[in-house]
Amino acid sequence: MEQAQLFRAIVDICILIIAAELATTLSARFKLPRIIGPLLAGVLFSPYILGGLEILGSPLIEYNDIVLIFGEIGAVLLLFQAGLHMRFFELIKSGVAALVVAVMGVVVPFAFGIATSSLLGYDLTVGLIIGGSLSATSIAISLKTLGELNQLGSPEAKLIIAAAVIDDVLALSIASVIIGVVVESQPISTFSFIRSIAATLVVWFAFTAFSAWVIPRFTEYVNTLERLDEAEQHLVPIASLLLCFGFAGLSGLIGLSPLVGAFVAGMAVAGSRFESEVASFVELLGVLFIPLFFILAGAGVNPGAILSGNFLLIGLLGVGAVFTKLIGCGIPAEFFLKDRVKGIRVGYGMISRGEIGLVIASIGITYGIISDEIYAALVAVVFITTLIPPFLLKSSYDSDGITVHRRGFFRNRFLDKGLGVE
Amino acid sequence: MEQAQLFRAIVDICILIIAAELATTLSARFKLPRIIGPLLAGVLFSPYILGGLEILGSPLIEYNDIVLIFGEIGAVLLLFQAGLHMRFFELIKSGVAALVVAVMGVVVPFAFGIATSSLLGYDLTVGLIIGGSLSATSIAISLKTLGELNQLGSPEAKLIIAAAVIDDVLALSIASVIIGVVVESQPISTFSFIRSIAATLVVWFAFTAFSAWVIPRFTEYVNTLERLDEAEQHLVPIASLLLCFGFAGLSGLIGLSPLVGAFVAGMAVAGSRFESEVASFVELLGVLFIPLFFILAGAGVNPGAILSGNFLLIGLLGVGAVFTKLIGCGIPAEFFLKDRVKGIRVGYGMISRGEIGLVIASIGITYGIISDEIYAALVAVVFITTLIPPFLLKSSYDSDGITVHRRGFFRNRFLDKGLGVE
Repeated sequence: MEQAQLFRAIVDICILIIAAELATTLSARFKLPRIIGPLLAGVLFSPYILGGLEILGSPLIEYNDIVLIFGEIGAVLLLFQAGLHMRFFELIKSGVAALVVAVMGVVVPFAFGIATSSLLGYDLTVGLIIGGSLSATSIAISLKTLGELNQLGSPEAKLIIAAAVIDDVLALSIASVIIGVVVESQPISTFSFIRSIAATLVVWFAFTAFSAWVIPRFTEYVNTLERLDEAEQHLVPIASLLLCFGFAGLSGLIGLSPLVGAFVAGMAVAGSRFESEVASFVELLGVLFIPLFFILAGAGVNPGAILSGNFLLIGLLGVGAVFTKLIGCGIPAEFFLKDRVKGIRVGYGMISRGEIGLVIASIGITYGIISDEIYAALVAVVFITTLIPPFLLKSSYDSDGITVHRRGFFRNRFLDKGLGVE
Repeated sequence: MEQAQLFRAIVDICILIIAAELATTLSARFKLPRIIGPLLAGVLFSPYILGGLEILGSPLIEYNDIVLIFGEIGAVLLLFQAGLHMRFFELIKSGVAALVVAVMGVVVPFAFGIATSSLLGYDLTVGLIIGGSLSATSIAISLKTLGELNQLGSPEAKLIIAAAVIDDVLALSIASVIIGVVVESQPISTFSFIRSIAATLVVWFAFTAFSAWVIPRFTEYVNTLERLDEAEQHLVPIASLLLCFGFAGLSGLIGLSPLVGAFVAGMAVAGSRFESEVASFVELLGVLFIPLFFILAGAGVNPGAILSGNFLLIGLLGVGAVFTKLIGCGIPAEFFLKDRVKGIRVGYGMISRGEIGLVIASIGITYGIISDEIYAALVAVVFITTLIPPFLLKSSYDSDGITVHRRGFFRNRFLDKGLGVE
C-alpha cells in the first residue's frame, strides 16, 4: 500500500462520513428514519453513480481495501456495541423465546422460497438458494434504528437481538449445507441438515457460556495491571477491543460469523464492571468506522441492475420476504411477550436481510444454479428489506409517543458533557 | 485482505498498545522518561526478538500492512496534534529564529558527516550519505516528551516545533539532491543545491500561508452545515481529519514529507474557532494509532545488527550526531531566546533522527556507496539519538521543578471528566 493511496483512502472515508451525516440530517428534515440517509447516500456515492465519476483520471471515491476494512471494522464494532446492551443471563432468560422466534423466522422464509421456486417450475436447488437467501436476518439496521429510538433496553429489542444472533447461527448452518449440496453435490438429507444445525448451536452456546465466564475475569486482571500506574491508560477498553476482534476471528475459525463472535465478546464485557467505560470508548471509535458500514451497504447496490430487473419477481420475493419474517417471528414473539404490539415490532425488526443472503445468492449464480434475473431480484430484495424496518419501527414507536432521539449518527455523553453541547 | 487476517492484525495492534502502556508504567517506575517504554517495548516485540517467536506456525506479532498502516496514521495524527499547538502568526513570529536554528542544525551535522568521511578516507559521495543521514531531525519523540512534561506551549517548544518543520523541508531537499547525485549521477553544484532548497522553502511557505487562510473558512462553512441539524454530529472534527490527511497527501505530491502537510493542516485548524473540539477528538482517536508509531520505531531496529557492528564507528558518529545538533541548534536558539537553559533545551529537542535519515542511509547501501558497516552504524545512531532527548529534556525540566505529568500515554480531559477518574 502506497502512502499516497492510504491518505487518499482516509480522505475518501472522511468524505463518506460527512455525506452520511448530512444525509442523516436530511432524513430527519423529511421525517424519515435517520438511518435511511446514510444508506441512500451510499447508493448515491456508489461506483455506479457519483462515486464512479472520474475526476483528474481517478474516480471520485475509490472503494479500495482501506475503505472496505474500515467498513468491516464498523460492522464488528456495531455488533460489539449490541452485545454491550445484553447480559448472558438475559440471553438465557429469553432463551426459549429467542430460539423459537429465530427458528420460525428461518423456517417460514425458507419454506416460502422452496414453494415459490417449485411453483415457478424451478429445481429444488434453485429453491434452496432462494430460500437460503431469504432466511438470514441482518440485524445492523434494526439495531441502529432501535438505538435512535433509545429502545435498545426494551424487552422487544432484547428479543430481537437474541433471536437475530441465533438466526445468524442457523443461517450459517443452512449456508454450509447449501454449499455442500451445490458445490460438492452432497445428497440433501433432513437428518444431516438438522444435525449440522444442532451442532453449530451447541458450539455457539459453549462459546458464549465460556466467554461469559472468562472475559469478566480477564478484564478484572487487566484492570489490576492498569492500577499499577497512577496514570489513566484506558487499558480495559483496549483489552476489550482485543477480545472483540479476537473473538470475531475465533468465531470465524470455528465456522460462525465473525459478527457473532463480536456480539459474544460484547455481551461478556457487559457482565463485567467496565461496561460503561468500554461502551463510551467504543462509541467514539465507532465514529470513524460505523458510518462506513452503512455507506458500503448502500454502495454495494447497482441501481441499474435492479431497475432493469424483473419487477414481478422482485415484487413477489419482496412481499414474501417481508411477510414470512413478520409471520415467522412476529407470531411467536407475540405469544412469548404476551403483547401484540411488541410482537409485531419483533417481526419488523427481523425483516432486514444482508450479507449472508447475498453470499448464498452469489453462490447460486457462480455455480450456474440461478439465472441473472433471479440473482438481481434477490439483491434487490435484500436492499428493499433493508429500507423497510426503520420506517415500520419508527411509526410503531411514534404512535406510542416515543420520538426519535435528537442526536446525530454519533453520540457520546462524555464528549457532550465536555464540549458543553446543549 | 482476508477477514481473518484483518481481525488478527487488530488483535496484534491491541496487544502492542497494551505492551506500550505497560512499558510506559515500568518506565515511570524506574524514573525513566515515559516514552522510552514504548520504544523499548517495540524492540522487545520486534520480529528479531519476541515478535518473531512462532506460535502454532505463525509469528507472535505479524507486522503486516494493517499494522504498518495504523502506525503511519499515528505519525500523521501526532504531527497534526503538534500543529494544533501552534498558530500561523506564531510561526511567522519565530520565523527568523526557527529558520536560523533549522539551517544551522542541518549544516553543522552535514559538514561533520563530510569531514568525518574524508578523514576516514572515503569518497565525497559517502560523506553526502553520512552527512545527509545525520542532518534530518525527527520531531516525534521530543514532541511526546514535551507533551508529557506539559511544555508544548513554552517558547522553547514552539521554537523546536517550528525549526523541526523547516528542518524537515531542508532535509527533504537535501535528500532529493543526494538522490540526484547518487542515483542519476548528476554533478554536485552548490548553486543548484541552494536553489533547490530555496524553491522547496518557498513552496512550503506558500502552502502554509494558503492553508492558514483557507482552512478556518472551510471549518466555519462545515460548522454551518452541522448546525442545520439540532443533533450533534462532530462534522468539524471529521472535516479536520479530512484536511489533515488531504494535506498530508498533497504535501507528498508536491515533494514534501506528508508529515509536514499534517502539521500545516493542524496549524491552520488551530487558527479556527474549533481548535479544542478537534484536539480532544484527535486525542481519543490517537489512542489506537499513535502508540503503534512508537512501537514500530522500536521494532524496526535489529539489535543483532547493532551489537555486531563497529562500536568505534557507532560511537564516533553517535557523539557527532548529538553534539552537532546541540551546537547547530542550541547556540542560535540561546541567542534568539536570550536564555541559556532554554537554548540548550532546543538543542536537546532537535537531537532525534528518524525516517529521513534511514531513507538516505538505505539509498546509500542500495546503490553500493556505503558499506554494511557504515549502514549498521547509521541505523544504530538513529536509534541512539531517539533514546537520548527524553532523558535530557526530562532532567532539564526536573531541575526546574517541573515534574512529569501524571498521565498515561493517552489522555483526554473529556473522558477523564466523564469517567470521574481522579
